[in-house]
Formats: sequence, C-alpha cells, structure tokens
Amino acid sequence: MALGVDVGGTNAKVAAISPGGQVFTHTSLPTQPERGPAAFVDDLCRLVDTWKKLHRFRVSAVGLGIAGDVDAEKGKLRYSPNLHGWEGFDFRRSLGRALRARVAVANDANCAVWGGYLTELKKKPDHVIGVTLGTGVGGGLILSRRLFHGATGTAGEIGHITVQPGGEPCHCGSRGCLEAYAGSYGILRTARTLLELRPAEGKILRGLCSDLELLQPSHLTAAAQEGDALAREAWAVTGRHLAVGLAGLVMVLNPDVLLLLGGVSRAGRWILDPVQEHFARQPFRVPFDRLELRLAENPDAGCIGAALLAAERGR
Amino acid sequence: MALGVDVGGTNAKVAAISPGGQVFTHTSLPTQPERGPAAFVDDLCRLVDTWKKLHRFRVSAVGLGIAGDVDAEKGKLRYSPNLHGWEGFDFRRSLGRALRARVAVANDANCAVWGGYLTELKKKPDHVIGVTLGTGVGGGLILSRRLFHGATGTAGEIGHITVQPGGEPCHCGSRGCLEAYAGSYGILRTARTLLELRPAEGKILRGLCSDLELLQPSHLTAAAQEGDALAREAWAVTGRHLAVGLAGLVMVLNPDVLLLLGGVSRAGRWILDPVQEHFARQPFRVPFDRLELRLAENPDAGCIGAALLAAERGR
Repeated sequence: MALGVDVGGTNAKVAAISPGGQVFTHTSLPTQPERGPAAFVDDLCRLVDTWKKLHRFRVSAVGLGIAGDVDAEKGKLRYSPNLHGWEGFDFRRSLGRALRARVAVANDANCAVWGGYLTELKKKPDHVIGVTLGTGVGGGLILSRRLFHGATGTAGEIGHITVQPGGEPCHCGSRGCLEAYAGSYGILRTARTLLELRPAEGKILRGLCSDLELLQPSHLTAAAQEGDALAREAWAVTGRHLAVGLAGLVMVLNPDVLLLLGGVSRAGRWILDPVQEHFARQPFRVPFDRLELRLAENPDAGCIGAALLAAERGR
Repeated sequence: MALGVDVGGTNAKVAAISPGGQVFTHTSLPTQPERGPAAFVDDLCRLVDTWKKLHRFRVSAVGLGIAGDVDAEKGKLRYSPNLHGWEGFDFRRSLGRALRARVAVANDANCAVWGGYLTELKKKPDHVIGVTLGTGVGGGLILSRRLFHGATGTAGEIGHITVQPGGEPCHCGSRGCLEAYAGSYGILRTARTLLELRPAEGKILRGLCSDLELLQPSHLTAAAQEGDALAREAWAVTGRHLAVGLAGLVMVLNPDVLLLLGGVSRAGRWILDPVQEHFARQPFRVPFDRLELRLAENPDAGCIGAALLAAERGR
C-alpha cells in the first residue's frame, strides 16, 4: 500500500492507495502549519500506525504533494506561500526513517496531474498538459508518458503565465497572470465587478448568495445553470482568459490531451465552452484538431498521484 | 557527409556538413516554389552530383528544414505559408530514391534550434527553449536532450502565443501574437508607428534610412547603438513583448537555457536587455535564477541542424 498526502494550508488529505490506484481508505488531518513540519510528520506517523493495526496493511511508499516550489530530487520544500517555516525540512529523511518507506515529495499540482493521468487517462496518451483550477492555478506536464520536471523541478507553473499584460493583480505579486482570472479569487473578483457595475442584473445569482462576501464559484455555476446571464458572463470572461493561456501552451507543446482538474473545473461546460470556442478560432489547426479537452472527475487525483509517484519513483 | 537544406520561400541554403557539425561547403539555390517541389528536388540532386565530383564525398543523409507544419514521421509538408502547392509532397521518397540517402524533413525553426543546441551548446544542457527571430518567430524545444515533437510534430510554435489580447494583427490571421511584435514585420511596424507619432524624434534613424519603406531591423540596431532614443524605444517595446511570451514558457518548461537565434537576434543587447529586466522582476525566482539566456551566433544553425537530424534520425 502507498500513502498519498495532499498537504494544504489548512488540512491535509491522506489516503492509502493500492498499487492499481484505488483508494483503500482516506481521511483528513489538520495541517496546523504554525507547529512546524516535524509535528505534522508525527501526526502522519500516528495515523499510519492506527491504519496498520486496523487494516493490517504495510506502507511501502509515501508521497507528499505540497503547494509550492519543491525540490523533488532532495525531497524538500524550497518555498511555499501557505507553509511558512516548512522550507528546507527534509521530509524524505524524517518520514523515511519513521515509516521505513520510500518517500517522494512533489508539487501538489504535479501530483494531481499524475493522478489524473493514471486514473482518468489510464496512462494512454503520450503528452498531456494538466491544469489544476482551485484557489490558485497550477499544472503539470506529462511529456513522453512521464511527469516533466524541468531543470529545477518547477516545470508546470501554468498559473503565472501572463494572459493580460498590466491586468488584474495576482497573489504572486504580478499582474495579469492566468491565475488572476481563472483562480477562484480571480473568478469571484470578475463576478463581483460585474454585480457592482450592473445592479439590475444577476437576480438569480443574488438570490442564491445574498451575502456577496460568501460568494463561491459553485454559486456562479448554479446560477449559470438556471439561466443567470451575469453568472454566465463571469464564466465567459474566466474561460476566455483561460483559453488565451492554454492556447499558447497547446501551440508550444502540442499535447494529445488537455486535462482540467480541481474544484473550479466542476463548472463544466460553463468554463469549457468558451475555451473550446477560442480554440476553434485558432488559425493553426493541427495542434487543436488533434487535442482532446477533458475534465477530470476523480477528486482524489492529488493523493493517488502522490502515492503512486512515491511507489514508482521514491527512494 | 550529411546535406542540410534550409528551404525558404525565395532561396534555399544548402550545406554539406561533417558528422561533427562543421560546414564543409555551402551554397544557395533559388527555391522558385511555383515550379513545384519535384523541380526543386531535381536542382538539389544536380547540386549534389556536382559536389560529389568536385569534393569526392558521399552523401549519406539529407535533412530539409521547411517553414511550416511538417509531418516529420512521414517526411511530408502538411502546410506552408510560402510554398503553396508543396503540401503532401513525399520528400523522403523522392530525395531518398534520387540520392540513395536517409532523408529527414522537419520544421525549419526546429532544425535551427537543434543546430544551435549542437554547435553553440555542445548538447550539454538537458532542457532548452530555442526561439528563432526572423520575419516570423518560430521555435523548438529540446527536452531531456531530445528535440520534442509533440503529438503531431508541431511542438515549438512559439510565435503564435498571445502576448497582447486584441493587439496588433499577425500574419497568421490572429491578433496580439508574439510574432506580431517580435517578428521583423512587427518590429518595423512598431518603429514606423513611433516615427509617425514623433516627427521630431529619431533623427539618427531617419539619417540611416531615408526611405522608411526600406527600413530593416539592422537600421534600428545601428541607430540604437549610436544613441537614437526612438530606435532604442522600438527595441524596448519589442523586447517587452518578447519577454512576456518567453517568461511564460520559462515558468511552464523550466529550461536550463533560452537560446535566441535568427537575424533579429543580432540586435544583441537591444533586444536582450528588456527581456532580462522583465525576467528580473518575476516573483517566481527559481526558474529564472537557473536560466541562462543566450544569443546563438552560428548563422548556419538551420542547415547544420537539418543535416544532423537526418544523420541521426532519418530513415
């Protein structure tokens, strides 16, 4: 059994994964980053002990997916916006010793894309661009059937390509990044701007969420579904910016599949349609005609990918 | 000896290349695309016959680099903006039979990047993004020390990523592509616009080129060198757009080296400086700190790359 851990700033999803990529059991641990990484590792080890006794399985590999810049070679976190003070901690040594297991540490989006590649695409296509749409926008590249790391292990940082020079501010400090429009905070900013500009519109949306401070992408999806023109426009704006960034990547990388993962991808056609319309207008046809645009459905892709990366590649 | 042919819309550069990548002899043939590809192949065969008699070498492989969408697997041109009627012609069969040599057909920018990788970088770095700056903007990706083709052989189409949505028109039919700013026609458009808007400025540039219809990037370089503020601004605008496109690729692909090739790259620091300034401002440091930004100097990279691709990979 391999353990997959998707470490977020608030909670960590932990799952025991079979060699075939099935979730055997899963739970959630509070990350409490302020206690530091050693305390988190202790919690994780206690959980594994409990599971071992309960389910009588052996953990041979542990994969950690962490949001941030990960040195996959060394098994260390170089930088994370959410886990201050965790930088430089040697997860490979600490977890490896405690659990006597192979350990792999990777960027969380890379893990999710690898998990999606295994579970949704069954490792069939040669070249896949995976995009994780959540609060932030991340990604991973499967090139020639392998996760591509680049020179320093940071390949796949799709969220911070510029799609609108001088545009909306991004959490990274730049302006006009893909994430500033297609990350959930960017999507909600677009929706709130439209709601402010057009006080007479968006009735269904306003009905679904009376306190706009609590607005979520799921409200926009529900409102769009029920015919709310303003919610549909918010998705159209989001999709157009997403499409500009992704079209460039499709031309440069010429993948077989473009896989959208993460919570925001549950918007379905509301985010897919504007992307497909933009792709249909591209003059260079071959890379777009070949491309399959797909939404991933497995919500455990992050844990599965982390676990199987560790099982396959961890040392 | 391997033959490298860089097929342009007007002329084709032909060179005989040693296995080590040295140019043994080279010449230029008029392409005359309206005669069709078979006539061009005949010219090429006659040239090879002459060379064989003159220099007493054997041609074991022939590589053709062609601007356009090339099906490298089949050795055929799928689409070219400059060589109408050449689509679908089987270069591999026709040249292979006539010259009894292995034949490879590839995109011209891919060939130039491969040539630059071999001659300038000595095949040392693992991951390289190559950008060819000429009338158009093309490129090629060296990933894990191999030319990356993508799903349909079109990978590396760097020139048509959007750097300014709704921006200047591009030769491809879209707007705001990288090429629309960093291709020579885009650069000259920027310069002419500045010259029109500011009739009192650009004195040195106007002195170097009195008929603005004949303006070339080399005039802009010379004028910038001599202190012409308007020419420097034209390069700054060019470099900023180039930087936006390339920064995205650096974040997504995390290469060791970014190699600029082609005539426009002879602008040197005038095009490099704004790119480096933009890279220095990026909040995600690791991929940029690692990156080496380099200008290729070998003008025969296209022929060399085509020849050695054929020698290594042709059948």
